[in-house]
Amino acid sequence: MESLERYGHGGDRWTAGERFGREAGSFLDFSANINPLGPPTGVLDILRRIWNDPECSTLSRYPDPAARSLRSALAGRLGVDPEQVLIGNGGAELIDLLHSAARPRRVGVIHPSFAEYEAAARKRGQEIVPLKTEWDRAFLPERKALLAWIREVDLAWVGHPNNPTGTRIPFEDLVAAAEEATRRGTVLAVDEAFLDFLPPGEEISLLPRLEEFPTTILFRSMTKFYAIPGLRLGYAVAAPEWIRKLAEWQIPWSVNGVAQEAGTAALGDREFEEQTRSWLAEERPALARGLASLPGVDVLPGEANYLLLRVAENVGGPIPSRWLQRELGERGIMIRDGSTYPGLDGRYVRVAVRGRKENRRLLSAMEDALFRAGRVGS
Amino acid sequence: MESLERYGHGGDRWTAGERFGREAGSFLDFSANINPLGPPTGVLDILRRIWNDPECSTLSRYPDPAARSLRSALAGRLGVDPEQVLIGNGGAELIDLLHSAARPRRVGVIHPSFAEYEAAARKRGQEIVPLKTEWDRAFLPERKALLAWIREVDLAWVGHPNNPTGTRIPFEDLVAAAEEATRRGTVLAVDEAFLDFLPPGEEISLLPRLEEFPTTILFRSMTKFYAIPGLRLGYAVAAPEWIRKLAEWQIPWSVNGVAQEAGTAALGDREFEEQTRSWLAEERPALARGLASLPGVDVLPGEANYLLLRVAENVGGPIPSRWLQRELGERGIMIRDGSTYPGLDGRYVRVAVRGRKENRRLLSAMEDALFRAGRVGS
Repeated sequence: MESLERYGHGGDRWTAGERFGREAGSFLDFSANINPLGPPTGVLDILRRIWNDPECSTLSRYPDPAARSLRSALAGRLGVDPEQVLIGNGGAELIDLLHSAARPRRVGVIHPSFAEYEAAARKRGQEIVPLKTEWDRAFLPERKALLAWIREVDLAWVGHPNNPTGTRIPFEDLVAAAEEATRRGTVLAVDEAFLDFLPPGEEISLLPRLEEFPTTILFRSMTKFYAIPGLRLGYAVAAPEWIRKLAEWQIPWSVNGVAQEAGTAALGDREFEEQTRSWLAEERPALARGLASLPGVDVLPGEANYLLLRVAENVGGPIPSRWLQRELGERGIMIRDGSTYPGLDGRYVRVAVRGRKENRRLLSAMEDALFRAGRVGS
Repeated sequence: MESLERYGHGGDRWTAGERFGREAGSFLDFSANINPLGPPTGVLDILRRIWNDPECSTLSRYPDPAARSLRSALAGRLGVDPEQVLIGNGGAELIDLLHSAARPRRVGVIHPSFAEYEAAARKRGQEIVPLKTEWDRAFLPERKALLAWIREVDLAWVGHPNNPTGTRIPFEDLVAAAEEATRRGTVLAVDEAFLDFLPPGEEISLLPRLEEFPTTILFRSMTKFYAIPGLRLGYAVAAPEWIRKLAEWQIPWSVNGVAQEAGTAALGDREFEEQTRSWLAEERPALARGLASLPGVDVLPGEANYLLLRVAENVGGPIPSRWLQRELGERGIMIRDGSTYPGLDGRYVRVAVRGRKENRRLLSAMEDALFRAGRVGS
């Protein structure tokens, strides 16, 4: 039976539709981590304008190959120079570009983390040096192991917060990693795709300190927080030299015109940002409590808009994650099978945080499946 | 002074705006080759639907990573298996993927032709083997030279029709090239980005004969004919084995959801196709006649929706193409400087065919510039 992650990721309704015999659009999707409040109204205004424009200027003209307008808007927002920013066709393009531009021999990947780091390395024959982490330490490496690993590789990937765990290395360890990377010439790639979901203000990103760390590159996504994964939009922030190297590998017009305009519109919406953070501050703890109260389910306390769960061994069979994914799929709900992440096994699943009503539907479907499994015996 | 092609191609209104001190949107663009009749109304209906959709399903959900719906629609239309089709983020992505997937040591490029073949080779350190062509033979290679060149390289690029010339190798030479490529194991990449503009019916594509030629890969664009360059959309057609190899190098969700839906909607519009072909059958010859009547201008009889022009030496200075681009830019019109193509020099410019009124504006601006240059003396 085809895995829902046959294309490597969550959110694939089409595969779910084929597998569970339902209409692709009908699934309640907890397998992709998209802000349920979005997109901001400014994005919809852009769509209306594009549709209404008698000259069809966004559709019928090539997009700005340098994405100048969005690039300056972002640079202004982040307090960096536009030459420190590269816009990409989703974060996935920028991850891939780095593996072409940096040509590392050895690539450090924390297990578990986002699968694309490893995929980008493998297709280029770059060696993978895993750094294994454990549930008991919230899947965070110890500082000593982290620094030793930085010294061993040419390029090191750190999710901040990490995916699928939602936890992040303490800021002082991240700074130590960037210092060590700078000393050794290791490229430190910090994936901040979900950072926007965290409360602002706290010192949690290396962004204001990039000048100290010329080999550190930050990767961010606009698709998750602003809920526009269908348009594709991400960006990298680094020293201008690294941005130029990445840009040399980028294909022309990589970022479509609708995404460029929507991104610029989304950026300005402070109210949307605040609403998102207060939604998450309320719903993530509520969902975590509900999940933790289910029989045989442990919840990792993550900070992002998703939660990693550990299901007791053998619940529903030898691979609980696949069993639970199927049980919920048959109930019209998609979740992420954690066993598709290197470093996790069949005990783990990841679920997004959604709106209160949807979260309750997830809880009740999981409860139903787990109690049934308990009754049937395992 | 910055070249209008600083990002390698035409259609860059933003650079034109910076250079000529005008609003980017105000230029009449003859430097990009986009169907002036488009996009088809079905595409606009899709935009309206996306804007009106209360669930924001196209924006807020990941696009189908396999583009299943568009892929089947295209396969049905082309009479091939969906496994023979790969959808790309514009033709540019697919060109780039081929250089990763085929890993050629030596890449054959006809001079002049589309600059991305060479760019994709150069950034990977792949050696370029040019095949030089001449104005007097309509920039088409002789069959013997073509076959010898196929034997010399691992990957050979052929524009069909070629860009910027608009001319194409006779079909029997193309078949001979594909046969030779199959025998020698050379990958033959046929870029048919502008083929849709040619009258259908005539035997001009290798598409129906792909089974005979397992190393031949066809590249097509939907952005030019359907006038959606802002959305980015292209596809490759080849043996399933080659499609799988290309797909292995593609990043996840490379093709955004709006492009996937718009492409599916555009495909069905037969009336739009007929109108496009009758517009071009009328306006290209009219524009060619008008241009040929200008002092010092020769027109290459091409078949596509653009024309390559040769301007007499020293008109306006040592690089007539740059001079003419500037003269027209100051009049709010963008044209393509041919000297940015390897194999052409400062005598060449390329202009798109547009609607009758716009074409007349181009003619009159060129006349104005050329007569003034004649008066000033050169």
